[in-house]
Amino acid sequence: MTRDPRETNLAVSATNRAAIYEEHGGPEVIQIKDLATPKKEDLQPGEALVRTLFTGVCHSDLHALNGDWPFPTKLPLVGGHEGAGVVVALGPGADEWVKIGDRVGIKWVANTCFKCDYCLDGHDASCAEYKPSGYAVDGTFQQYTRHAARYLTRIPDGISLEASSSILCAGVTIYRAIKEANLRAGQWIVIPGSGGGLGHLGVQYARYAGYRVIGIDTGEEKRKLSLDLGCEAFVDFKTSSNVAEEIKAVTGGLGAHAAAVAAASAKAYELALTYIRPRGTLVIVGMPVATLPLDIFMTVALAHRIVGSAVGSRRDANEALDIAAQGKVRVVYQLKGLSDLPDVFRDMSEGKITGRVVLDLDK
Amino acid sequence: MTRDPRETNLAVSATNRAAIYEEHGGPEVIQIKDLATPKKEDLQPGEALVRTLFTGVCHSDLHALNGDWPFPTKLPLVGGHEGAGVVVALGPGADEWVKIGDRVGIKWVANTCFKCDYCLDGHDASCAEYKPSGYAVDGTFQQYTRHAARYLTRIPDGISLEASSSILCAGVTIYRAIKEANLRAGQWIVIPGSGGGLGHLGVQYARYAGYRVIGIDTGEEKRKLSLDLGCEAFVDFKTSSNVAEEIKAVTGGLGAHAAAVAAASAKAYELALTYIRPRGTLVIVGMPVATLPLDIFMTVALAHRIVGSAVGSRRDANEALDIAAQGKVRVVYQLKGLSDLPDVFRDMSEGKITGRVVLDLDK
Amino acid sequence: MTRDPRETNLAVSATNRAAIYEEHGGPEVIQIKDLATPKKEDLQPGEALVRTLFTGVCHSDLHALNGDWPFPTKLPLVGGHEGAGVVVALGPGADEWVKIGDRVGIKWVANTCFKCDYCLDGHDASCAEYKPSGYAVDGTFQQYTRHAARYLTRIPDGISLEASSSILCAGVTIYRAIKEANLRAGQWIVIPGSGGGLGHLGVQYARYAGYRVIGIDTGEEKRKLSLDLGCEAFVDFKTSSNVAEEIKAVTGGLGAHAAAVAAASAKAYELALTYIRPRGTLVIVGMPVATLPLDIFMTVALAHRIVGSAVGSRRDANEALDIAAQGKVRVVYQLKGLSDLPDVFRDMSEGKITGRVVLDLDK
Amino acid sequence: MTRDPRETNLAVSATNRAAIYEEHGGPEVIQIKDLATPKKEDLQPGEALVRTLFTGVCHSDLHALNGDWPFPTKLPLVGGHEGAGVVVALGPGADEWVKIGDRVGIKWVANTCFKCDYCLDGHDASCAEYKPSGYAVDGTFQQYTRHAARYLTRIPDGISLEASSSILCAGVTIYRAIKEANLRAGQWIVIPGSGGGLGHLGVQYARYAGYRVIGIDTGEEKRKLSLDLGCEAFVDFKTSSNVAEEIKAVTGGLGAHAAAVAAASAKAYELALTYIRPRGTLVIVGMPVATLPLDIFMTVALAHRIVGSAVGSRRDANEALDIAAQGKVRVVYQLKGLSDLPDVFRDMSEGKITGRVVLDLDK
Repeated sequence: MTRDPRETNLAVSATNRAAIYEEHGGPEVIQIKDLATPKKEDLQPGEALVRTLFTGVCHSDLHALNGDWPFPTKLPLVGGHEGAGVVVALGPGADEWVKIGDRVGIKWVANTCFKCDYCLDGHDASCAEYKPSGYAVDGTFQQYTRHAARYLTRIPDGISLEASSSILCAGVTIYRAIKEANLRAGQWIVIPGSGGGLGHLGVQYARYAGYRVIGIDTGEEKRKLSLDLGCEAFVDFKTSSNVAEEIKAVTGGLGAHAAAVAAASAKAYELALTYIRPRGTLVIVGMPVATLPLDIFMTVALAHRIVGSAVGSRRDANEALDIAAQGKVRVVYQLKGLSDLPDVFRDMSEGKITGRVVLDLDK
Repeated sequence: MTRDPRETNLAVSATNRAAIYEEHGGPEVIQIKDLATPKKEDLQPGEALVRTLFTGVCHSDLHALNGDWPFPTKLPLVGGHEGAGVVVALGPGADEWVKIGDRVGIKWVANTCFKCDYCLDGHDASCAEYKPSGYAVDGTFQQYTRHAARYLTRIPDGISLEASSSILCAGVTIYRAIKEANLRAGQWIVIPGSGGGLGHLGVQYARYAGYRVIGIDTGEEKRKLSLDLGCEAFVDFKTSSNVAEEIKAVTGGLGAHAAAVAAASAKAYELALTYIRPRGTLVIVGMPVATLPLDIFMTVALAHRIVGSAVGSRRDANEALDIAAQGKVRVVYQLKGLSDLPDVFRDMSEGKITGRVVLDLDK
Repeated sequence: MTRDPRETNLAVSATNRAAIYEEHGGPEVIQIKDLATPKKEDLQPGEALVRTLFTGVCHSDLHALNGDWPFPTKLPLVGGHEGAGVVVALGPGADEWVKIGDRVGIKWVANTCFKCDYCLDGHDASCAEYKPSGYAVDGTFQQYTRHAARYLTRIPDGISLEASSSILCAGVTIYRAIKEANLRAGQWIVIPGSGGGLGHLGVQYARYAGYRVIGIDTGEEKRKLSLDLGCEAFVDFKTSSNVAEEIKAVTGGLGAHAAAVAAASAKAYELALTYIRPRGTLVIVGMPVATLPLDIFMTVALAHRIVGSAVGSRRDANEALDIAAQGKVRVVYQLKGLSDLPDVFRDMSEGKITGRVVLDLDK
Repeated sequence: MTRDPRETNLAVSATNRAAIYEEHGGPEVIQIKDLATPKKEDLQPGEALVRTLFTGVCHSDLHALNGDWPFPTKLPLVGGHEGAGVVVALGPGADEWVKIGDRVGIKWVANTCFKCDYCLDGHDASCAEYKPSGYAVDGTFQQYTRHAARYLTRIPDGISLEASSSILCAGVTIYRAIKEANLRAGQWIVIPGSGGGLGHLGVQYARYAGYRVIGIDTGEEKRKLSLDLGCEAFVDFKTSSNVAEEIKAVTGGLGAHAAAVAAASAKAYELALTYIRPRGTLVIVGMPVATLPLDIFMTVALAHRIVGSAVGSRRDANEALDIAAQGKVRVVYQLKGLSDLPDVFRDMSEGKITGRVVLDLDK
């Protein structure tokens, strides 16, 4: 496994290069500048300082930048929530959770209460007190990130920090979504966007559990990637004359047992309801501000199940990373630098990104 | 337990009084007339002849009469699918399943294939070959009903035939819907229409399993019935200034863990999504031809689960009857005669029926 | 709900009356004496000081005293692990978890790591780092008990402190054991010792979830108590000519779906295997140092399931207390004083105790 | 997929070569002789006549021959219960279930009642009326086998009849046992006898579902086979100094999440309890007439689960065959002739058989 040479450098620089914005807007409001690095003495009890080396860029970061969602963000804000780095300083009591030098990841959920029913049941994203990274608190678009030590995720040997960053949000999110489909090995799941950020990871997590996977996406490159990663069949939604019929043909007539849909428009969700079988499950994991018109009669007649799934728990993160560290999940990403962030958001707005983008925070 | 004296009369009359209609329309197309009773020699292998003494009248019967649904019915049609009676004749091989004199019930599902994955998993209503009674085959609005012996349900001692008829569709359907909510004892479920046909049975089945129940309905009579049957709280949707807030107050702030909604309009389903808590389940069990607009963002943010549930399996029917036969479920119904059927449909169309209507097929 | 007047007295006395022993032995090694109360300044980060007012006495306390089990205890030791009281002082950071004046309970598990798979899955008693109260750390046989704030259990309104103490170990343990049986409402469970400490609570928790309960115990008093608490049938193991046959008769021939056995001898476990049905579950919750000879052939032929269950999780404790606070569980106990502890152990050794014993720590 | 040329020959010969014995004893009591083939007119309603071409030989067949088990067999008896062939004649009504020419399999369970709770829940082997093939009714050690049509299993395209026979008992049995372990992809399961009849199939079914597998067996050939089939680690029980320690080392210290043990002696079951982790599951699938001494204290302390699993359901059989037909399970067997049966039993008694033996019934 490749280690980044910087992983062993535990010195703390006084300056902290960050991407920050003071108000919502387009990529042009982002400023790349040096902030002061928090001092060890400033760390709260239970807090850790993470030297973040890499961060993924997620569609949610774009929503935060634009101020799209019905919940307000902190402002000014350092965004980002797919960070990977090493622990370089600890507040009082934080060493119960991590040690200096530990390779750790930062996720969308920055902390939860550890007390409520949801926390006790491992449904972290339903905790009423949860704080999202890069949204309600500053995130990973910076070289040094303060973070609750107890909510950091240990990154296992066997995976590089840069690859792990995409697991920490995209991977965990689709991993959990697939779990929520509650399938048994040998059952069929459809992953729309099988060549995309969440999708290409979803194909592999689904295969890992013995599910039979049908990818939906478009273009020869994504077809090839989808099949290489383990899809038994691929439907090109642009060229297919009837996506549902193709899927039914592959699955012996009834349709798939489930679909995990991370799409940005309502259409993909509507389509999914046409190709899942009776008692099939549609897991909704994308977050467009849009409406899915649900036919009540058919939902009953087909005994369909529609399940919302948001990110994952600490347990899910451990599992998703562990599977990747076994070499069973290949992360497809382009490595860029923090200074490229505005351009990355531009490309993302225009749907131009293939796979996942990971930023080297020193570049 | 009260036995109807006719239960022990196993003679077969040559005439079979029935309610039949030749085309869809209003109550006026129904004809009450004497058909020929099937002869023992006419029974197919595996078929039984049931002397039906009582039948419930279900909202689905009205849909069948009107021709509302996207699937065509048999025509001419004898409707009805909540029948209770005794076995009076058997076709070849049928005695493997029932004996002459057995008290048996007829349900919405008239038969399934017993071979497909759905049948093997106990999801009878998802079998591609299932035939609905009183819809695709003649049903229970007649004194003598032919029926697949293997799909008849044994009616246990401890419940009268007339009360059992309402369990065979309304009871089983809401019993299964509550099961699909997948709750644990001590969790909260909301039953809208708690004073109605399915609802008043649902309250009792939910209580039987230790769930805490909140009823929604309107009027003093239904409030009293709901509370008597075990609701811990009741919300009058006509007089409440805010149904969701009332429910949240009762449940400690978060809302209910589930709702089982059998309503005839989309509004009740939309409302349910405002009072179930994060990770809460909305079980859809009513079948209006209507659309529920599902907010994709909020479905994910709240990790909501929406589950369609149609009738129940043979196993569910056995369980629902068994619980009722233990004296734990009181069926509230008005007893009328077969000749009242047109009026019953008129009242049903106008929403005038309280509880369930059961018909004595000899009247 | 009765509040003890001492609940509102948050002053901390300098002396701490305790029952302590320096080596294992019989009741005679116990010394009741005044220890120094820990000072607020001595509390570790995350630690709370609890003014313990009541404690239950558990069979495990006797095992700890005697040194019976294969794991060594701390020595000298203050035993006890069913404590109820109020928080009177907090170490640094502990106020994240509890506040001064909170009514709290202390359980067998004194703390866990909050990090491992078991903790994340809510299987606290399987955490490799868990410390038992009154065993590996000093417990509740004292007026002031230091305890990890995060592992204290909030005691809800609606239950008195003295009654709650029995829920905190006996109640939680049998509540969890019944959960492990994985039943559905309407299924049969046998609770041997239905008139005893764990058993009488188990009957009520099982009834709460809609399970049908058969008690086993001996004598008229326990028969009456068992039936009063909700058993549908009772078998007196001393006078029954055939326990298994009686249970099969009650359950329609097949036997019970489960048994939750907390007995102190292997015999009750062997017996249970004769009266559970095919695919039935025997939950083992007692901890005699004894062997159950399992017939391999019959275990397969009957598809029996044998499941060990130890205490419960934080979640289980919250649920068990919550149900009791709803008034659904009546705790049967005798109230004694701390100075009676040696006699309580003597009675326990001789099997003389009916129900649970709770000690007032000021007496 | 290889088709046997005889599959399309639907003619029925008057003679039926069979292995039959009139009393229990060693292999010498077996007679190979020609019986009369049942005539079409003799078939009962619902019965099919299967031209059995291949049959596996199972350890249970040896128990039946010897009369080892506490349940009596039919005598004289044609043993065998892993048969594969084609349907050549049908009794009245049997064509609801299968057609002439269908490739079908015969399993240990010859028929069940289709009515009881166990049947409705898919726990066929717990049905009180189930009849074992080659034990309570004549089995597959013959060229023509009468069988309930509804209980025949369709053999999918993609697998040869001779390979399928081993799936029909060994495969289904271990497939179901692994299901009973209730694991999640990524968890560890130990398969003792990983190079043997059930074990080598179990390794592959476990891998199919994404479980991580450790094989236990002995010798270089079995080590190689086990690793080739997907074991991540292999422990040679004869040369290992400490099986449990080896397994704990591979699994990160805690031990495996489950073991599925099909061994013929109690020792392997006792050993399994030393290498499964807290909350681990031991699935017992072998049927030695022997006793497993279960330490009650440790069962609770470790929260162990011991689960008996007998053969599988119709659903399990469909799934196990389907997975094999996808090319995901390679059956390792030696093909012999019916006349070799006595020798096969001799080798089996002496533990000399590697993999599974399949008999060509025409040889």
